[in-house]
Amino acid sequence: MQDIKSVYLDNNATTMVDPEVLNSMLPYFSEIYGNPNSLHAFGQKARKALSDSLDIIYECIGASDDDTVLITANSTEGNNTVLKTMLARYETMKGRNKIIVSQIEHPSISESEKYLKERGIEVIKMPVNEDGIVDPKDLERLIDDKTALVSCMWVNNETGLIMPVEELCKIAHAHGAFFHSDATQAMGKIKVSVKDVPVDYLTFTAHKFHGPKGVGALFIRAGKPITPLLHGGEQMGGLRSGTIDTPSVVGMAVALKKATHDINIENTYVKKLRDKLEAAIRTIPDVTIVGKPELRVPNTILVAFKGVEGEAMLWDLNKHGIAASTGSACASESLQANPTFKAMKFGEDLSHTGIRLSLSRFNTEEEIDYTIDVIKKSVDRLRQLSSTYA
Amino acid sequence: MQDIKSVYLDNNATTMVDPEVLNSMLPYFSEIYGNPNSLHAFGQKARKALSDSLDIIYECIGASDDDTVLITANSTEGNNTVLKTMLARYETMKGRNKIIVSQIEHPSISESEKYLKERGIEVIKMPVNEDGIVDPKDLERLIDDKTALVSCMWVNNETGLIMPVEELCKIAHAHGAFFHSDATQAMGKIKVSVKDVPVDYLTFTAHKFHGPKGVGALFIRAGKPITPLLHGGEQMGGLRSGTIDTPSVVGMAVALKKATHDINIENTYVKKLRDKLEAAIRTIPDVTIVGKPELRVPNTILVAFKGVEGEAMLWDLNKHGIAASTGSACASESLQANPTFKAMKFGEDLSHTGIRLSLSRFNTEEEIDYTIDVIKKSVDRLRQLSSTYA
Repeated sequence: MQDIKSVYLDNNATTMVDPEVLNSMLPYFSEIYGNPNSLHAFGQKARKALSDSLDIIYECIGASDDDTVLITANSTEGNNTVLKTMLARYETMKGRNKIIVSQIEHPSISESEKYLKERGIEVIKMPVNEDGIVDPKDLERLIDDKTALVSCMWVNNETGLIMPVEELCKIAHAHGAFFHSDATQAMGKIKVSVKDVPVDYLTFTAHKFHGPKGVGALFIRAGKPITPLLHGGEQMGGLRSGTIDTPSVVGMAVALKKATHDINIENTYVKKLRDKLEAAIRTIPDVTIVGKPELRVPNTILVAFKGVEGEAMLWDLNKHGIAASTGSACASESLQANPTFKAMKFGEDLSHTGIRLSLSRFNTEEEIDYTIDVIKKSVDRLRQLSSTYA
Repeated sequence: MQDIKSVYLDNNATTMVDPEVLNSMLPYFSEIYGNPNSLHAFGQKARKALSDSLDIIYECIGASDDDTVLITANSTEGNNTVLKTMLARYETMKGRNKIIVSQIEHPSISESEKYLKERGIEVIKMPVNEDGIVDPKDLERLIDDKTALVSCMWVNNETGLIMPVEELCKIAHAHGAFFHSDATQAMGKIKVSVKDVPVDYLTFTAHKFHGPKGVGALFIRAGKPITPLLHGGEQMGGLRSGTIDTPSVVGMAVALKKATHDINIENTYVKKLRDKLEAAIRTIPDVTIVGKPELRVPNTILVAFKGVEGEAMLWDLNKHGIAASTGSACASESLQANPTFKAMKFGEDLSHTGIRLSLSRFNTEEEIDYTIDVIKKSVDRLRQLSSTYA
């Protein structure tokens, strides 16, 4: 245990690029570097790699040849594109003027909503139930024939809770609305197939499943409308302009294939480590772990230790080389209360005590043993210093 | 000469990643892989690299600490952001409703214009003179106090011609309009400093100067308005959301430093090769080389061989391992007449015969000798087949 210097338990923020993924990318920086849109041999070699990678991506998510998968910079771009497509439709058609999104979406949804609202779109929020999950009954209650889009993340980034996207999708379609899911936290952790769940739009990004940062994808079901966010060259059929980053797309495809084809690693190896860590944490008194384990992806624990500030705990862990987080890295600077905790109607007190531990297949059992040891000591120490915990 | 298998002369489409740049990126994939927005040690190491890289970028373009440099996916994103900021200002302020752009802009400007036009913005085009250059007198004639923005590329991607951005910027400012320049083709080829030329906005992308694809930057002068294109997390002060791609930003900084600090390589080594190639091409009869050499960046030749279709020439060169292009890679699929040729009022005939040769510091004199040989033979052969050339 002495030689453990660092343990990375913040895989919902970003992941290590799998060395095998990095290797697959390397030839495309300084050897096969042509612009995939160039007609000469340098370009066509890159285009072949791009086309092979797209084939893999289509296969991994269950897309058909008639569907479109746009390469994006990240899920933020994909989410913005889908929501703003509804705005463009509203502007030109003045028909459906309403979108329904869950209360626990990532800022790339919730901030885009604000932009839509200022431009005349009505945004309605679906709450979550006491389990932290969106209840399809709430959607039934909120939806009407003015609804253009329902958007609900597949898995919540804070809690790891899995949302009932199949039922939500069915309800949306029954009312003639489109259904979008941000699958950023689901991809590679549980099965995500657009064949099984007939979503109209799906977003994900490579850096959450051991692929490179700066690349993601937006799935668009055949025949569904999409308005480009980036106007320019002919790349991606004019639907997403800008020179395509071949090495990153190659890396995303390799990472996605590993993550989706070896999904059992999450359910066996990662889950085993997570369950061991969770069981040990449960032996500590006055602990709240958010969400029933069977409703969560296999890698995430969101835990609150009564009387222990999340921030203080984080720094204690960090001092011992353990990386965890108090919330989304995308909102780390504001130190606001965790929005998912808020939606779940936890008190202000509990909202400030949560920390998220998110594992990956690169963690080891030794690291988990070490983490258990550090957490127990840290909780003890911080509770002794606490004025609110007796 | 026998062992030359391939010569890459399409560096205005994209460049090889400098192996030194790639080396600088490597630690950030699988070692220092934290999310730069995470507060723990993994994140903070990445943040340090990001912050050091941003310092280099600010220094290389002459930005001050009060200015903003946003990391983007590419110049397309930067250009879209600037143009659509003018739309957002118009929508909220209903004041200046006009933008002026040159006739020879990249599609990421000209397609964004269309989007703006549909939403009530008047778009006015500045022509180019017989030298292929925007004439400041034309701007004087077109601009008025309803003009929100003047946008002109620093260097044209097809011809390599340098535009009088300093004078255009002065005229824009004299009329209370903002000035934007897409410096994508200028960066690393000639000096680009926002200290020397007081542009309000500047865009560029790393893959044009031996940096990685998928990353670029948007400079915004202190105090100038900017409306985010991607809404979401707090990255880049909320002005450009989405997880930051540390390895790419590190690579862009290293590439930019090399490109801007060793700018003499362009003016000595690259220029010498280009001039040799150009001189040899001029010995071929019935040749048009677009733009006076002293008005062009040192790496580009846009040439038309009378009676030789650009496409045919391209394939002949390609068969001999030489990569060139007939136009922007961003419009390679449509095979439309070259827009710059059109703006320069060349006949339809000449518009279809142009090919672009764009060099870099990775080309060798041997490659140029080989290219001269292939071009001469190819022009001979194709003219013999030509029905229009006697």
